[in-house]
Amino acid sequence: MIIIGEKINGTRSRVGKAIAVRDTAFIQQLASDQVNAGATYLDVNAGTAPDKEPQDLVWLIQSVQQVVSVPLCLDSANPEALRAGLAAVHRKPIINSLSGEKKRIEGVLPLACGEKTDLIVLALDDGGIPVSADKRLEIVQRLVALTRQGGLEDGSLFIDPLVTALATDIESGNKAFDTMRRIRAAIPQAHITSGLSNISFGLPVRTVVNQAYAVLAVSAGMDSAIMDPLDQSLRNILYAAEVTLGRDRYCMNYTKAYRQGLIKTA
Amino acid sequence: MIIIGEKINGTRSRVGKAIAVRDTAFIQQLASDQVNAGATYLDVNAGTAPDKEPQDLVWLIQSVQQVVSVPLCLDSANPEALRAGLAAVHRKPIINSLSGEKKRIEGVLPLACGEKTDLIVLALDDGGIPVSADKRLEIVQRLVALTRQGGLEDGSLFIDPLVTALATDIESGNKAFDTMRRIRAAIPQAHITSGLSNISFGLPVRTVVNQAYAVLAVSAGMDSAIMDPLDQSLRNILYAAEVTLGRDRYCMNYTKAYRQGLIKTA
Repeated sequence: MIIIGEKINGTRSRVGKAIAVRDTAFIQQLASDQVNAGATYLDVNAGTAPDKEPQDLVWLIQSVQQVVSVPLCLDSANPEALRAGLAAVHRKPIINSLSGEKKRIEGVLPLACGEKTDLIVLALDDGGIPVSADKRLEIVQRLVALTRQGGLEDGSLFIDPLVTALATDIESGNKAFDTMRRIRAAIPQAHITSGLSNISFGLPVRTVVNQAYAVLAVSAGMDSAIMDPLDQSLRNILYAAEVTLGRDRYCMNYTKAYRQGLIKTA
Repeated sequence: MIIIGEKINGTRSRVGKAIAVRDTAFIQQLASDQVNAGATYLDVNAGTAPDKEPQDLVWLIQSVQQVVSVPLCLDSANPEALRAGLAAVHRKPIINSLSGEKKRIEGVLPLACGEKTDLIVLALDDGGIPVSADKRLEIVQRLVALTRQGGLEDGSLFIDPLVTALATDIESGNKAFDTMRRIRAAIPQAHITSGLSNISFGLPVRTVVNQAYAVLAVSAGMDSAIMDPLDQSLRNILYAAEVTLGRDRYCMNYTKAYRQGLIKTA
């Protein structure tokens, strides 16, 4: 499982404050904690106004890179911020994200193709998140045609089928799983990623719904998650899903993760 | 989800002792606790020597029926014990269980058909648990031909595909899920049931593997579980699996179970 740690996000108030006052220690702690908890990538999102975002994102990147060596996931729709971020990263990053929105195709796609980065691809366009799996797959395939044309390999892509809340559409999970299965079949080299908490919005005891969603998403082909790596119950269930689905020969990843303290009773 | 509470089992030492000394209060507490935790049926297993089993099973049944009104699941391979138990129950029970073993076909099947009980059907025969899903389905179909011939409706059956430990066969889960999906397709009226803890035998932090198994089993068609209803994390994840799979219109079962205190943070 490729885990993209989501905690360094300036739209969270404590992080936004740390960015404003240049609290390096706070950001670096968030980075180390996530990497120690098994994060494969760290998402960095400044979440500030467009004119300040480039310098804020670069500051985040530099702060993080002083303490951890995992690659980063540059989370912005602002081409200026992305361009500055791309110049600052030490390792090949993921750009978060391309979608079918005209502005993103014009602003984000050329940067990803030019720098040959990895790229999160969202199944939405200027009309929003389509209700049907058919339409979502259509958007994804249109975008993959563009990334191929731009010289990106399918293996560089992290496709996010997007999941909405069960509380507003009881078929939300099934639509995401269906989209995942069809992406896995149509674009077998691409990674499939997803956030793990939207599904439970508006329900009580959200964490157990997030866990069930995670298991079913792994079963449908998800091999990457955008999540809080410090969430012990989610981490547990992701390892458990892989071993239960027979994707962990001799249960070696599971027992190794246990010995490393990554799996434990919550 | 039909929950068959498994705790009243004489092979567990504390329960065996309670049976030996006729500790009615202990058994009745186990019964009430399981029903309060959402058990639909209570399994009763005396687990004693064949000559004592009939009277021990009847004592269990009478003790339990004094405090709860849910139907029982008579857990024995001993026709004498089952016959005595059938005479003692107030409500239509499940018999646990028929299998492809010659002795069970001769001893258990006529009782179930004669009394028109519900019946757990195990996918094993005198050769043990077949390795392949094909062979398991073959046994099930042979047994279902017999139950139909004996006048039992398919809806009376709780078919258990049987799951072995991942630690000895990494495909254990997939074989069980595959068998479940094929049973659901071939015998659509039958219930599908499973124990939820065999899968994790030999692994650390077993409870998270049991949870992942439960979610995937629900996805494969399982609508009944033989389990400890007091296991909060399993109960949580079973409700969560159903809502995430869209089998809970308007999330009503989930939110109702939450309000009843059946779903809570562990």
